[in-house]
Amino acid sequence: MTTQATTVPAYAAPAAKAPLERTTIPRRAVGEHDVLIEIKYAGICHSDIHQARDGWGEGIFPMVPGHEIAGVVTETGPGVTAFAVGDRVGVGCMVDSCRVCDNCRAGFQQHCANGSVMTYNALDKNGEPTYGGYSTHIVVDEAFTVRIPDGLSLDVAAPLLCAGITVYSPLRHWNAGPGVKVAVVGLGGLGHMAVKIANALGAEVTVLSQSLRKKDDGLSLGARHYYATSDDATFEALAGTFDLIISTVSAPLPLDRFLGLLKTDGTMVNVGAPEEPVSLNLFSLIGGRKALAGSTIGGIPETQEMLDFCAEHGLGAEIEVIRADQVNEAYERVLRSDVRYRFVIDTATI
Amino acid sequence: MTTQATTVPAYAAPAAKAPLERTTIPRRAVGEHDVLIEIKYAGICHSDIHQARDGWGEGIFPMVPGHEIAGVVTETGPGVTAFAVGDRVGVGCMVDSCRVCDNCRAGFQQHCANGSVMTYNALDKNGEPTYGGYSTHIVVDEAFTVRIPDGLSLDVAAPLLCAGITVYSPLRHWNAGPGVKVAVVGLGGLGHMAVKIANALGAEVTVLSQSLRKKDDGLSLGARHYYATSDDATFEALAGTFDLIISTVSAPLPLDRFLGLLKTDGTMVNVGAPEEPVSLNLFSLIGGRKALAGSTIGGIPETQEMLDFCAEHGLGAEIEVIRADQVNEAYERVLRSDVRYRFVIDTATI
Repeated sequence: MTTQATTVPAYAAPAAKAPLERTTIPRRAVGEHDVLIEIKYAGICHSDIHQARDGWGEGIFPMVPGHEIAGVVTETGPGVTAFAVGDRVGVGCMVDSCRVCDNCRAGFQQHCANGSVMTYNALDKNGEPTYGGYSTHIVVDEAFTVRIPDGLSLDVAAPLLCAGITVYSPLRHWNAGPGVKVAVVGLGGLGHMAVKIANALGAEVTVLSQSLRKKDDGLSLGARHYYATSDDATFEALAGTFDLIISTVSAPLPLDRFLGLLKTDGTMVNVGAPEEPVSLNLFSLIGGRKALAGSTIGGIPETQEMLDFCAEHGLGAEIEVIRADQVNEAYERVLRSDVRYRFVIDTATI
Repeated sequence: MTTQATTVPAYAAPAAKAPLERTTIPRRAVGEHDVLIEIKYAGICHSDIHQARDGWGEGIFPMVPGHEIAGVVTETGPGVTAFAVGDRVGVGCMVDSCRVCDNCRAGFQQHCANGSVMTYNALDKNGEPTYGGYSTHIVVDEAFTVRIPDGLSLDVAAPLLCAGITVYSPLRHWNAGPGVKVAVVGLGGLGHMAVKIANALGAEVTVLSQSLRKKDDGLSLGARHYYATSDDATFEALAGTFDLIISTVSAPLPLDRFLGLLKTDGTMVNVGAPEEPVSLNLFSLIGGRKALAGSTIGGIPETQEMLDFCAEHGLGAEIEVIRADQVNEAYERVLRSDVRYRFVIDTATI
């Protein structure tokens, strides 16, 4: 590689709903504050599928998904101070933001008032499309690059860059810890990390899943209790139980029933959500001064904090490593919830 | 009056949807920890109308509404320690609770796990119906009686027992104060007290009302800004402005639009709400880590704190005092929003 713009192999969706296929994409020259990263692993997030199939509309094609990126720095721009060649690093959902608004200054780049630049399916400040992690290399500003501590393997670290921070941030913000009862709705890519992290934070964790199919997994991941939401008795047995509910599912939930599971002053946080509006009776919030909230990823400082926390507690994602040519099959399996719990592409196979 | 059970004049709805009329009702004997209160003024709350017309179903008739009660103690039970004959006191929405659950012990009787006893349209611990403040006297346990400070006239104090505490509690809980931008949705009985209290707490207050009809009032009550929600430009001009929105309206609101007015980490609290479920896109919460919450009245300690705060800052309700025989007409006017800002019955006219 050189400091010149270059072309690298990648897997891309050439058009909305088209299968992903091998191609090449441009990567910009390594700028003053950029690092060139040789990507080792890229996690597959449900939102990759959504965007590759243009579920949110206005997709930019060809599209290279992937915002759970783990790799090694192979080149640094002359102004880079935080990283050196050989450093193990990660890149998550964002590769830039305005850096001057109040939120950016406070380290909440995910809430950039001027819109942060997403890792793929976006235009950067020069108007060039961004391409994600299903690729061999990526050039990223060091300000949006985080360090993967030595204790974490790159393969199990990759999913932390989206799934991990997405649940770590609300668990910290809403004070999951000793004496706090946390319910995690859905035991998928996000949910399984929520169980691990909430348990490591000291909270008493309950999984609320559609069925008891993954109960053994849930308990071994760190949950103390496991209930099926398909069973009406669950909602009676657990009424008024939780301080915090983290919903990781994108299916529409009967929110009033879930809010009934909260204690006084409890909060239900949605990190997954359906596209369509949901129905809610506001009296479900008024009784017990409850809150329904939302949260999305975290800022760069908190993402680093999350990685350090996960390394300290030995928390990687549960993964199934695949070859790049298995990505379309993996997408189908994700849609069937047939993954325990995250697919990770070995980018050496691209 | 005596320590024996007695019969007192009152205004009651004899049946659902029937006009209120003069009648007599029983009041229990003054028990060990009871005070007998000669009611001087009783505020008319929108929920009085709702219940008298059996809008929530299962109403207990005859029904004597009224949970904004201000009066004077005329007799005390032998075990009463906090009050003496002649004391100026108030009674709000509750007259009892289990007193042993965690919420009761913490002073949050409004969230009693076993259900607090409402001041009217409820059954007390002996299974007897409770009757509210549209009456000349009431017998209440001293634990559910609060002191009205000398600085507050009883007439303007009465509405504080529901309207005042209903907005004071969330304003305090969500930290309204200097540097905090608070929007109050709806300028009625609750809304006008929210403006006064939020302003006295030091917050920068904006009223969001359907029209600009009451703008002059809003500004003189303490609002810095006043916008019409019927004007689409309001939602553009104020996007991302508020730390806290207090919605006092019971009409269904376009919640996604209102949530767009919040800053990052902002909260919209509903103290009024429609009966029917509302529609909400959860992505309105996810972007900006926002929360939609609810709140209802406050506990007994906080109700006392609110009265002390209002007395200290000279905050009474804006009222129109009526005779008891005007109550049905007043109900119609409340339903037309034709009241600035609370009707208060002079109970000497019953």
